[in-house]
Amino acid sequence: MTQFYQEITPAGFGIAIKQKEILFSEQSPFQKVEVFESDSSLGRVLTLDDLMMTTEGDEYHYHEMIAHIPMMHHKNPKSVLVIGGGDGGTVREILKHDTVEKVVLCEIDGMVIEACKKYLPTISCELDNPKCEILVEDAIEYIKDKKNMFDIVLIDSTDPMGPGEGLFTEEFYTNVKNSLKEGGIVCAQSESPFVNKEEIKKMYTLLKKVFPICSTFTSNIPTYPGGYWAWAFCSETVEPLSYWDERRGNEIVKSCKIYNKDYHYARFALPNYLEELL
Amino acid sequence: MTQFYQEITPAGFGIAIKQKEILFSEQSPFQKVEVFESDSSLGRVLTLDDLMMTTEGDEYHYHEMIAHIPMMHHKNPKSVLVIGGGDGGTVREILKHDTVEKVVLCEIDGMVIEACKKYLPTISCELDNPKCEILVEDAIEYIKDKKNMFDIVLIDSTDPMGPGEGLFTEEFYTNVKNSLKEGGIVCAQSESPFVNKEEIKKMYTLLKKVFPICSTFTSNIPTYPGGYWAWAFCSETVEPLSYWDERRGNEIVKSCKIYNKDYHYARFALPNYLEELL
Repeated sequence: MTQFYQEITPAGFGIAIKQKEILFSEQSPFQKVEVFESDSSLGRVLTLDDLMMTTEGDEYHYHEMIAHIPMMHHKNPKSVLVIGGGDGGTVREILKHDTVEKVVLCEIDGMVIEACKKYLPTISCELDNPKCEILVEDAIEYIKDKKNMFDIVLIDSTDPMGPGEGLFTEEFYTNVKNSLKEGGIVCAQSESPFVNKEEIKKMYTLLKKVFPICSTFTSNIPTYPGGYWAWAFCSETVEPLSYWDERRGNEIVKSCKIYNKDYHYARFALPNYLEELL
Repeated sequence: MTQFYQEITPAGFGIAIKQKEILFSEQSPFQKVEVFESDSSLGRVLTLDDLMMTTEGDEYHYHEMIAHIPMMHHKNPKSVLVIGGGDGGTVREILKHDTVEKVVLCEIDGMVIEACKKYLPTISCELDNPKCEILVEDAIEYIKDKKNMFDIVLIDSTDPMGPGEGLFTEEFYTNVKNSLKEGGIVCAQSESPFVNKEEIKKMYTLLKKVFPICSTFTSNIPTYPGGYWAWAFCSETVEPLSYWDERRGNEIVKSCKIYNKDYHYARFALPNYLEELL
């Protein structure tokens, strides 16, 4: 009999994927970490506490957006912090920018990193890059005393429940803001506009208290409920769509499956229901 | 035990919805027509041959796109033909345009129309509008001798298998083109860019033989596999994004949950993988 992985949201619907074999399933101090081989074009799938995180077959939908949309707004991003993101997909995309000298990955759960290194090599492939420093620690603590350190901070977190909860607070956002250099930009995954309306409202209320510029962009994620995802774009000084680096951009687009200049410029056009929510 | 409706694509993944109660399930001469009450925010769900067609909770994602994107490119759309679309959602959106004098709905399966009138009134509500003429007949035959009749033709069909198959041929597209008035526009649903790559390739190869202008726009559909859908925009003379009617547009946006001017202009920016496919 065919086994299915199902993720059904509290809204009563979600996704289903044919399962072939569970490759890794362990309880870390923070969450259940699982990688299974699907019987689908998605290939291998990473779940945390049984919630979909990423798949080999569609991961670029998420990672290209969270990395390139903010990175391409910055004239010379040298130092980047990724909070969460233990699968390594965001680091891989960041390192396509030849301006980058250092990426710090601050992931609380070392088991996520190890499982992804072993079972999802096409996603985690740049975690061993010498420009990448991996810290297995709590970003809430890590960020507290960091001032004027990063050009870009990407909050590549899980949902606002479980280990990711403390990454959705005013105090945390304030510390993230203080860790930015002048002209810095923060980008945070901000849930599904169709499914997680309440969570989005809460999150943006806090972000707008902290950042004078707080905007939203969206794109398709085939394996997230609703197939549609939002990210917050926050800064003290950088307006959305105020800059696109032609030299870097034209190079990076060649290695992307989604991202290009037109697609970049189209991302901040939101549906009415989301504009009203924000 | 919770019952789920699942639609799993040949790619091995898809959507799952909690089911509460089947309200209507009959075999028509063409297909199995079913409406069920879901135990979800999607409300009632219409399936044809067990494939997801529309839900009360997310139908506007589809209907606003297939109607308003082409309609807003036309300076004065008076006569519109909808092929398929028996649920009535596309007709409802078309009738928001005060220029429209007549909409012909040509749906092969009368049972779809009757089931939607009874069980999906928020979608089918304008099918009784005196401007709407309903023809229960095969559009392939209907369109054959129609010349210079329509400003807009919308092909709101099922997938290219089953009763919808003949709506994806060069002969049919040629007849549709001949039914257009000068300055006319055709818009056709064209499947999921992420899931139905082969079907898209075939369809656009044919469309491009027939129409000198053939472009693609995309948007999110939460309940279609992959959460992302494409539509073909075809014309002999009208280029995509060549016109947007301010007067009509500003009125229509007020009654839409998705559609607005920025969103309209962003729709033709495609991901790299889709540009390469086309």
